Amino acid sequence: MTRRRIPVAVLGATGVVGQRFLSLLEGHPWFRVSELAASERSAGKPYREAVRWLQSTPIPEEVQGLPVKRVGDDLDASLVFSALSSDVAGPAEEELAGRGHLVVSNAKNHRMDPRVPLLIPEVNPEHLELLDRQPWGSGGIVTNPNCSTIGIALALKPLHDAFGVGALHVVTLQAVSGAGVPGVSSMEMVDNVIPFISGEEEKIEHETGKILGVLQAEGVTAAQLRVSAQCNRVPVLDGHLASVSVQLEATRGPSEAEVMEALSGFRGRPQELELPTAPRSPIVVLDGEADPQPRRHRDLGGGMSVSVGRLRPCPILGWRFVLLSHNTVRGAAGGAILCAELAAAEGRVPGAPDSWPSGS
Amino acid sequence: MTRRRIPVAVLGATGVVGQRFLSLLEGHPWFRVSELAASERSAGKPYREAVRWLQSTPIPEEVQGLPVKRVGDDLDASLVFSALSSDVAGPAEEELAGRGHLVVSNAKNHRMDPRVPLLIPEVNPEHLELLDRQPWGSGGIVTNPNCSTIGIALALKPLHDAFGVGALHVVTLQAVSGAGVPGVSSMEMVDNVIPFISGEEEKIEHETGKILGVLQAEGVTAAQLRVSAQCNRVPVLDGHLASVSVQLEATRGPSEAEVMEALSGFRGRPQELELPTAPRSPIVVLDGEADPQPRRHRDLGGGMSVSVGRLRPCPILGWRFVLLSHNTVRGAAGGAILCAELAAAEGRVPGAPDSWPSGS
Amino acid sequence: MTRRRIPVAVLGATGVVGQRFLSLLEGHPWFRVSELAASERSAGKPYREAVRWLQSTPIPEEVQGLPVKRVGDDLDASLVFSALSSDVAGPAEEELAGRGHLVVSNAKNHRMDPRVPLLIPEVNPEHLELLDRQPWGSGGIVTNPNCSTIGIALALKPLHDAFGVGALHVVTLQAVSGAGVPGVSSMEMVDNVIPFISGEEEKIEHETGKILGVLQAEGVTAAQLRVSAQCNRVPVLDGHLASVSVQLEATRGPSEAEVMEALSGFRGRPQELELPTAPRSPIVVLDGEADPQPRRHRDLGGGMSVSVGRLRPCPILGWRFVLLSHNTVRGAAGGAILCAELAAAEGRVPGAPDSWPSGS
Amino acid sequence: MTRRRIPVAVLGATGVVGQRFLSLLEGHPWFRVSELAASERSAGKPYREAVRWLQSTPIPEEVQGLPVKRVGDDLDASLVFSALSSDVAGPAEEELAGRGHLVVSNAKNHRMDPRVPLLIPEVNPEHLELLDRQPWGSGGIVTNPNCSTIGIALALKPLHDAFGVGALHVVTLQAVSGAGVPGVSSMEMVDNVIPFISGEEEKIEHETGKILGVLQAEGVTAAQLRVSAQCNRVPVLDGHLASVSVQLEATRGPSEAEVMEALSGFRGRPQELELPTAPRSPIVVLDGEADPQPRRHRDLGGGMSVSVGRLRPCPILGWRFVLLSHNTVRGAAGGAILCAELAAAEGRVPGAPDSWPSGS
Repeated sequence: MTRRRIPVAVLGATGVVGQRFLSLLEGHPWFRVSELAASERSAGKPYREAVRWLQSTPIPEEVQGLPVKRVGDDLDASLVFSALSSDVAGPAEEELAGRGHLVVSNAKNHRMDPRVPLLIPEVNPEHLELLDRQPWGSGGIVTNPNCSTIGIALALKPLHDAFGVGALHVVTLQAVSGAGVPGVSSMEMVDNVIPFISGEEEKIEHETGKILGVLQAEGVTAAQLRVSAQCNRVPVLDGHLASVSVQLEATRGPSEAEVMEALSGFRGRPQELELPTAPRSPIVVLDGEADPQPRRHRDLGGGMSVSVGRLRPCPILGWRFVLLSHNTVRGAAGGAILCAELAAAEGRVPGAPDSWPSGS
Repeated sequence: MTRRRIPVAVLGATGVVGQRFLSLLEGHPWFRVSELAASERSAGKPYREAVRWLQSTPIPEEVQGLPVKRVGDDLDASLVFSALSSDVAGPAEEELAGRGHLVVSNAKNHRMDPRVPLLIPEVNPEHLELLDRQPWGSGGIVTNPNCSTIGIALALKPLHDAFGVGALHVVTLQAVSGAGVPGVSSMEMVDNVIPFISGEEEKIEHETGKILGVLQAEGVTAAQLRVSAQCNRVPVLDGHLASVSVQLEATRGPSEAEVMEALSGFRGRPQELELPTAPRSPIVVLDGEADPQPRRHRDLGGGMSVSVGRLRPCPILGWRFVLLSHNTVRGAAGGAILCAELAAAEGRVPGAPDSWPSGS
Repeated sequence: MTRRRIPVAVLGATGVVGQRFLSLLEGHPWFRVSELAASERSAGKPYREAVRWLQSTPIPEEVQGLPVKRVGDDLDASLVFSALSSDVAGPAEEELAGRGHLVVSNAKNHRMDPRVPLLIPEVNPEHLELLDRQPWGSGGIVTNPNCSTIGIALALKPLHDAFGVGALHVVTLQAVSGAGVPGVSSMEMVDNVIPFISGEEEKIEHETGKILGVLQAEGVTAAQLRVSAQCNRVPVLDGHLASVSVQLEATRGPSEAEVMEALSGFRGRPQELELPTAPRSPIVVLDGEADPQPRRHRDLGGGMSVSVGRLRPCPILGWRFVLLSHNTVRGAAGGAILCAELAAAEGRVPGAPDSWPSGS
Repeated sequence: MTRRRIPVAVLGATGVVGQRFLSLLEGHPWFRVSELAASERSAGKPYREAVRWLQSTPIPEEVQGLPVKRVGDDLDASLVFSALSSDVAGPAEEELAGRGHLVVSNAKNHRMDPRVPLLIPEVNPEHLELLDRQPWGSGGIVTNPNCSTIGIALALKPLHDAFGVGALHVVTLQAVSGAGVPGVSSMEMVDNVIPFISGEEEKIEHETGKILGVLQAEGVTAAQLRVSAQCNRVPVLDGHLASVSVQLEATRGPSEAEVMEALSGFRGRPQELELPTAPRSPIVVLDGEADPQPRRHRDLGGGMSVSVGRLRPCPILGWRFVLLSHNTVRGAAGGAILCAELAAAEGRVPGAPDSWPSGS
């Protein structure tokens, strides 16, 4: 009674996020990596020779010998994960959508495209319906938000639903894996912090509203909240930490217990559907006085749970807390896989059964 | 025509801040270290044997052989720098003041004491007059603010004078030297960030108003501004970085050029008096897109200048910028030495000439 | 048909190695943690309140509420793991042995005691027979070598068996977890390396000969090899790396392929017995030009495999290579658990069936 | 009576070593930076716009506005420092020598060229005479050894002179600045050590013999010593540490005091000539049990002194110790500047007075 798994392709397979896709897809119950693509330099080689592997688990056996294709080559897999860099992702993803593939992308290019869902399955699963309005026939594009935005928007969702969020002030301390390889030189990161990440603050400020927005006839209407983001790079491998202050709109301000309950009790569609990559608790509230911390808590829920700690009043905006999310799992590859699982479960993967996984 | 230097004692001389005092006082034109004191464990030993020296310059020759006294022993020096830990600093400092010493303290104990100036020489030099109202006769106590607060209050001063500061939202990324030794275990700091520093947020939130406050007949009236501080420990040796947002009260909001000019043009009493430790520019405005950075800019102005970069509008509070100050120089030992220089220049060091340094 | 697991006690349960014991024993098929003991300060509290947990996985549920006993209190468990510090381990372990417990210790106190096996189950399983000559009746003491020595001796074993090792020159780059908490201050470890670890070089130089020695009527006769060890502390969390040079005694020097085959083909008693914690390959030979690396390879074989790379001729001693082992898994808690598994399988755990695990 | 300084050009001025040249030459009493050259990408821009400055002191004012030339452009300065990468240094340096410039190079290309001195001014100043036999007319090439080799050879020199060195076993822990920018990615360096540096071990093994060699009619005859080098990259900014074992040939082995005296008492030609960059003590012997350490001791002697500590017997080779040298000062730019100072003092800089600095 073994069900056939859906074959998937991974674009940009040699990069840091591409490697994480392969690690997370090893032994996935629904998906099986059947094709890899990367830049010209890697094309033609078996994967194990093309990649400079940086993960702490070995290269999954099933992909070690897969030949690396060129981005742009024909692909058989109907489901394609894109970890392409933004300088090539835009047209490459549209072309694949046009050829009938469902592309789940971690690249920034189509995130703010009004036709494309900017998806966090727990937050705005209904945005997937935008796929019906895309111009690419049976194919389509779904995007994953920026690695910092995902954790922030996920933590905001229950607060926004319960109390309304009027303003969000966030200062991030981001891990170096977010910059890939070579990314940030170690000469710049030893005994140092860099208070700037190109384009990052704008992404957080722009994407949050769309994610929390309402799907309407004419598209997604962005939520109206003011966002101020300041981003720092710190010498941490994985895990973006954020010092967050929020202003709630509820006329009767909630109690600390109510805010905490809203966060820790939150469940979304992936939890209802019991999607394979869904963590039991999307938001884990910690009570240690110095929690969460990147090294200790980034792997909670297999790296898919967001951790929140130190909830307390903010003298300026009302509430503040510390937020942590794993930037290459929940914030990139894992988040995209969860998007694909939701798409599969809703019958939106071309060629796969409508009522996956039961209908097989 | 060599003038005699004022002999000074350093309490807590073996700790991280104590070591920094000795490094900075090496070759000081006005002060000469003549006595050292530390805990029972060190008492009686020559300094070089009592200390576990951690600075990157050698132990100054003039103190290597000085015998370490007990805290509480009689001291000859009329000027005393205190780098004592807060569990012993309170009564020890009062006792010394009562015996006629001027104590310039880096400890927190008397900072919020209404009789004691919380002094940043560029910001509130007039608060020194509180010395006249202290109950300790010819002795007295002057305190240095918290290491993070100093940089913040210094950068706020010209903005407060020119435009009024109504609210300050600050998230810090603080160096490990602020915790001393053993301080933060390396097991907690490798591949990690700790989003909590005990008591630090409260200090920033409480001290800032007093520093920017107005000296009146009944004491210092604190400035009315709302302050929200969130503090993180990062794997950096020296230099506290802060992501700062401020709300200005001026009805006509200033332009970016006006804010920048207020910051970079700021000069205070130490610059007028050309005190030995005063940097030419208390606030250095940098124009690199990723500046300031701890390792690259903490030593500007000999560690006494505060660096500001990335000035830009904040969608919530109005303005935001990145701030850096050297936590053990400007934020501790260097700041305290500058306080003492101001006191000396104003004839407030017992036994030293009134019009130091000219009157000798 | 679920077999009852052997109850075990963990002494020194709040320290870094103690925490690792609890993590590794979570869900262990043979052993169940039933008692914890630590210093006076922790005694009486439930474990979750007594410990400052530093692992990246949560505290195992089964021990969270266990009350922490005092070291010296009576214990019910016949098998006791000791992660005590060496200033208290000596008499405490002897007392427990005298009361009939089998103590498997990570402390250094009894390692060089001629009555006590210094055990690496793959290397010298026959040394367990020393238990029969111990003076403690049904109880006894087994020790785990020093964290650096374990990996080195394990890699030497097949070379010694096949070719004879005459000299070993080793320079280590050791992780900070080896020093525990507070251990090495982060102020000493940021942008730094410390070329000294108290007592470590002596341990490597003394223990290696005993481990590779021959059990004879009068005790273990140490192997005759000259050992030179130089130890450095580096800013790495887990994983001791070593640059190793060895001189082989075989008159016909082996080829590189023969050396490699001896290393990678090595299997020991734990592999034959398929002990639960035994890695499939005790020594993994890597072929990457810059392997092994602590962060990437320390978890191979669940942290129980030693990694070897860069095997090449040494102009002075003959052969050299790079060696990595996980210092708190194979080098401490995991190594000790494997010792206990061997003891259990050989019917040497008091009160447990002779032919564990089959005989139950 | 201000003497005119010798104008110098710096090639590869935007790289890490190039930046260090400019910092060290700021305010140099003999040399004045008058020209800069770098790759095509930087050509034509003022230096401050071409460089991504990484030093912790600001860009020297005198070079901020200097236009960056192309490597290969005509230069006016008769003395040229080359910090070019090895893929372009070879022909570029020969061409300049052929045009009459004295090139002092940090690149590896000509180091083992029998016509070219591989110079450490304290060690083999007489090798400068090779300049007389070079085929480039009034121009010539002098090279600086590899950054690790310099410190090692410098420490060996007095031991070789006094006792003869038969074998050298060295394991390095090297700083990331040695790899330049981008160099080692921070993703590879957080919580990690890399036991491989391309080409480094060969350089140490080959260069040491030439440096310690004897200048004879037919060229330099390399010293006969066996060298084994194993190189590791560690997360340290500056300062290469080495665990060194040496075998001395003296039939009567020296005492520890004699070895120590040979090291600490060593002085060379730069000290006799009082060259501006010469440290008072080329080798500083430290007595701290955990010294030297990169962050604390790399700046001794302005970064030009090599530190030695932990001298003790080695059970295999006889003696062992810990060695530290600043890789971008003594090991690169500072070392090259000292070479140029020696050349100037010996009248070997074309166009400069023969008896510099007195003859002006």
